[in-house]
Amino acid sequence: MTSQQHTAYTIGHAPSQIKHHEWRTASNSAPHLLPHLASLLTTNPSLKLLDIGCGPGTISASLAQRLLPSGHVLATDISDSVLERAKDHALSQGLSVPDNISFQKASVYELPSPDGHFDVVHAHQVLCHLDSPVPAIREMLRVCKPGGLLSLRESDMKMWCFWPELPSLITFHDLIVNVMLANKGQDKGGRKLVSWVLDAGVERKDVEAGFGTWCYSQEEDRKWWGEAMIERLRTGEMRKKGIELALTTEEGVEEMIRGWREWMGREDANLGIVNGEVIVRKPEV
Amino acid sequence: MTSQQHTAYTIGHAPSQIKHHEWRTASNSAPHLLPHLASLLTTNPSLKLLDIGCGPGTISASLAQRLLPSGHVLATDISDSVLERAKDHALSQGLSVPDNISFQKASVYELPSPDGHFDVVHAHQVLCHLDSPVPAIREMLRVCKPGGLLSLRESDMKMWCFWPELPSLITFHDLIVNVMLANKGQDKGGRKLVSWVLDAGVERKDVEAGFGTWCYSQEEDRKWWGEAMIERLRTGEMRKKGIELALTTEEGVEEMIRGWREWMGREDANLGIVNGEVIVRKPEV
Repeated sequence: MTSQQHTAYTIGHAPSQIKHHEWRTASNSAPHLLPHLASLLTTNPSLKLLDIGCGPGTISASLAQRLLPSGHVLATDISDSVLERAKDHALSQGLSVPDNISFQKASVYELPSPDGHFDVVHAHQVLCHLDSPVPAIREMLRVCKPGGLLSLRESDMKMWCFWPELPSLITFHDLIVNVMLANKGQDKGGRKLVSWVLDAGVERKDVEAGFGTWCYSQEEDRKWWGEAMIERLRTGEMRKKGIELALTTEEGVEEMIRGWREWMGREDANLGIVNGEVIVRKPEV
Repeated sequence: MTSQQHTAYTIGHAPSQIKHHEWRTASNSAPHLLPHLASLLTTNPSLKLLDIGCGPGTISASLAQRLLPSGHVLATDISDSVLERAKDHALSQGLSVPDNISFQKASVYELPSPDGHFDVVHAHQVLCHLDSPVPAIREMLRVCKPGGLLSLRESDMKMWCFWPELPSLITFHDLIVNVMLANKGQDKGGRKLVSWVLDAGVERKDVEAGFGTWCYSQEEDRKWWGEAMIERLRTGEMRKKGIELALTTEEGVEEMIRGWREWMGREDANLGIVNGEVIVRKPEV
């Protein structure tokens, strides 16, 4: 384990990146977990859930709402400022801090909880930012109680499909993948999730695998997504890293921004993004 | 409209192809339609549904079961032998023919029904086999009643993600896409669905779009899928067309079969396949 592993969030916490994440909720970003959660709650209303790498905390808060009144979410992240923002979001949603949800700074490689503490351990698009996903999964399993669930959802960056296939959007897609790889992240996490959890010591019979999608096609979704991408190109890590690594140029960035504007304006436009999903049942001792 | 449009099913009705389709049900292959269907049935228990290009009829039969006792499915295909098989399947599922479900030979370009006849018109992976999807959609809309629904689900052939990425499977994927294109089919139907329905005269506000997936990772799913692909390579259109068009060779086919065998045997294996989905609400007159 290197010190980089403790502190790295490869794409940064720029406002553009945070804004891009705020659209996410349990419904659109943890659909594979929801039926399991509903089922667990019928026998255990005081369910304890850990949400790792919570970012702006919109998924964490919507999970906490599903655990009301007796369950609890602990949301962790490696950035103090992001945790503050996530706490504000939880309060804005009418949640009680720390009764319904609490926040703690933590590395995914060293979680601040005893063995077997949580009924459900969840991470959404966290492993794709790590250079060593397997040790992180081992640590997640450590804090999951025997009989509990580990829920993972990871983007497969290769699996974006655009319509129309504007050349500048294809270039954008190459850039986002290459920035991720330059930061030692994972571009194919979605398809590798099963392989990773097996490498972490899980048996195949204890894994349920699937794929989930995001679709940006309705006008408001196109606008939301396109604006978020433009903001990342204007002010985020994408521009900075992309130019620094000579993956693009100022002119290239402007061309991609024009591409997103064109895409947003076309009512026949569509974008599908694919995420791998697994639910791991940790065996009883 | 050419005569080819009336009769072509580009990948053929070989037993290998039919077997490959039999796994499909409404649950795994029409999930976008099911909530709409449940909602419509609450006010209209005698719902009439048209399932176009039914193939072996497993989706049609599972839709008919959801419409019991008073609804009805008409399933069409362009092959008599396939319709016979679909009828046998419906009977084997305890459905009454023709009370719950009936079968009729028909081209998607000339549906044998009056204007506005069906509450729901459904087609699963039909447009991808056509050289002219838009006229087919117009014909589907013609037989849909005002206020009724058109439900489409089309594979996006480019959107397959394998793990592990065995070279022979990548070659297989190229072959299946190229055979589809050589047959004047559509390799990117999933992402183009919104564009196609707009070209057919639908307004954007009447379209709901999404993407759905198939995942082959559990042992029985890997085995089922891998065996189906091997059978297509051994006896189906894939081998015949692939060799005829010089897209592969006998040795190439054997190599791909070995690739699928290896993939099936690996418990870390995964395959995600992405389908575009739309629900179109036909405006009231």
